[in-house]
Amino acid sequence: MQISVIGGRDVSPELLAAAEAVGAEIARRGHTLVSGGLTGVMEAASRGARSAGGHTVAILPGDDPHEANPHVEFVIPSGLGVARNTLVVRSGDAVIAVGGSYGTLSEIAFALQFGKPLIGIGTWPLEEPDGADPIARAATAEEAVTLAEQMAAGT
Amino acid sequence: MQISVIGGRDVSPELLAAAEAVGAEIARRGHTLVSGGLTGVMEAASRGARSAGGHTVAILPGDDPHEANPHVEFVIPSGLGVARNTLVVRSGDAVIAVGGSYGTLSEIAFALQFGKPLIGIGTWPLEEPDGADPIARAATAEEAVTLAEQMAAGT
Amino acid sequence: MQISVIGGRDVSPELLAAAEAVGAEIARRGHTLVSGGLTGVMEAASRGARSAGGHTVAILPGDDPHEANPHVEFVIPSGLGVARNTLVVRSGDAVIAVGGSYGTLSEIAFALQFGKPLIGIGTWPLEEPDGADPIARAATAEEAVTLAEQMAAGT
Amino acid sequence: MQISVIGGRDVSPELLAAAEAVGAEIARRGHTLVSGGLTGVMEAASRGARSAGGHTVAILPGDDPHEANPHVEFVIPSGLGVARNTLVVRSGDAVIAVGGSYGTLSEIAFALQFGKPLIGIGTWPLEEPDGADPIARAATAEEAVTLAEQMAAGT
Repeated sequence: MQISVIGGRDVSPELLAAAEAVGAEIARRGHTLVSGGLTGVMEAASRGARSAGGHTVAILPGDDPHEANPHVEFVIPSGLGVARNTLVVRSGDAVIAVGGSYGTLSEIAFALQFGKPLIGIGTWPLEEPDGADPIARAATAEEAVTLAEQMAAGT
Repeated sequence: MQISVIGGRDVSPELLAAAEAVGAEIARRGHTLVSGGLTGVMEAASRGARSAGGHTVAILPGDDPHEANPHVEFVIPSGLGVARNTLVVRSGDAVIAVGGSYGTLSEIAFALQFGKPLIGIGTWPLEEPDGADPIARAATAEEAVTLAEQMAAGT
Repeated sequence: MQISVIGGRDVSPELLAAAEAVGAEIARRGHTLVSGGLTGVMEAASRGARSAGGHTVAILPGDDPHEANPHVEFVIPSGLGVARNTLVVRSGDAVIAVGGSYGTLSEIAFALQFGKPLIGIGTWPLEEPDGADPIARAATAEEAVTLAEQMAAGT
Repeated sequence: MQISVIGGRDVSPELLAAAEAVGAEIARRGHTLVSGGLTGVMEAASRGARSAGGHTVAILPGDDPHEANPHVEFVIPSGLGVARNTLVVRSGDAVIAVGGSYGTLSEIAFALQFGKPLIGIGTWPLEEPDGADPIARAATAEEAVTLAEQMAAGT
């Protein structure tokens, strides 16, 4: 499986630790991590995945491959700006959101639109018109990746 | 000014009427309407703008110009899928959201990320970490377009 | 009809004059001009179209609408970089190439791939494996637009 | 290094063999293969790279990861249509073209526009206004990858 981890560049130390743990858990279970390749959550998750022996793919907004954080193994310098957010989401069999601001919100919206399994740790509150929360919430990295596996198996 | 109107394909008659009124008000004040070119809010706003003598531009997700609703004057069949949402938002000096589902939520997120004036009529509730609502809420078409003009003048 | 005019930023005065004449001829016959919105052939064609009372649409590579030349009426600041070349080509019912360098060559290739009517004035020589020239060559603006109309009617 | 191999879906057995040899040579020297992920040259090069123990990344035009050929290890289902051609080219530190039709011609044009090292085996003839051939021609896979390495080192 490829699992996309989305999240912001400016997040709390707690969420960075969670992102790193998510990346490590993804790798430990034999999956590939996809991210936007920049700093913050993207870098923490990539560091976690590589340190656990996994593969990391990144899709950058700019056209310079050197903008990728040092834990990115395979880099797509898209040159598309934030339109690359759609590719980060499409490249995951499941999507895990950790914290995040507006860019992450756009990726959450695309994950929901594409019907992708979507798990959140400390990310945007969202309420459907019927009051439901469209995001599966997880408290730990292990729970998040387990949910990703289960939801992807069910789709 | 170019003003982008975003919103869903499956909305209530009340919101369709609001979208049509927004399109008409945009045209009446001499602005150009930009939309995603499909049905629902996009079609209602385009109809309103054309019936008031204004211009309408549409950026379609697919590559077939005939998918545009009949009130589109100038059509960009992007072939980009939902990545075209970024272009709809970028093409507006201000963005007005009417109702809408996940696609609209992604456009709201991009408008916020780009710092565009963003006005909402009956669209997603959103809450920043500090409790603030990042969307300027309007009750009527006239109020929405006035807010768009004022906010764009201030940026 | 929407007709896309493609061509370089750094071309001879003769080709600039040809591009302006093509833009004027497009407008005179009631068609809309689509271009990449920057300088050179794009600006000359837009100037020609506006001076003849026609409409001009531009799809910019960057995200700043002010990068458009002053003869652009409706602007799509795509933020996609050169990936916007696909949109310029897709937006034309026919494509006319005037001079041009590598960017224009990419647009010629997309026009051929999409099966769009493609007319060239002083642009790249191209030879298919069977020796054929895939571009309909024109000597004058009038001939180019006539070919565009005839080829679009036949498709 | 990441090396992008571009080329058509409908090519001769000789060019398919060349593409497979190029993929194998890329892998043997420790580089990663990037391609468009479909059939023909893209599949042959990916098969060659995997059989030689290398990594393969693919950027698909569609949004279905299952459209990738079976030799793709990491897949980006872009959903961008042919606009993904720009990403295939941007993702290579060098680009090797094997045969190919219009899609390949667009990628050749982008490689030239981006100033990427560009090597061709049995691909489009091209002539600059000054009569020069902008593509470095290679007769064998070994020669092509050696040229890619040398030209990338010089840039």
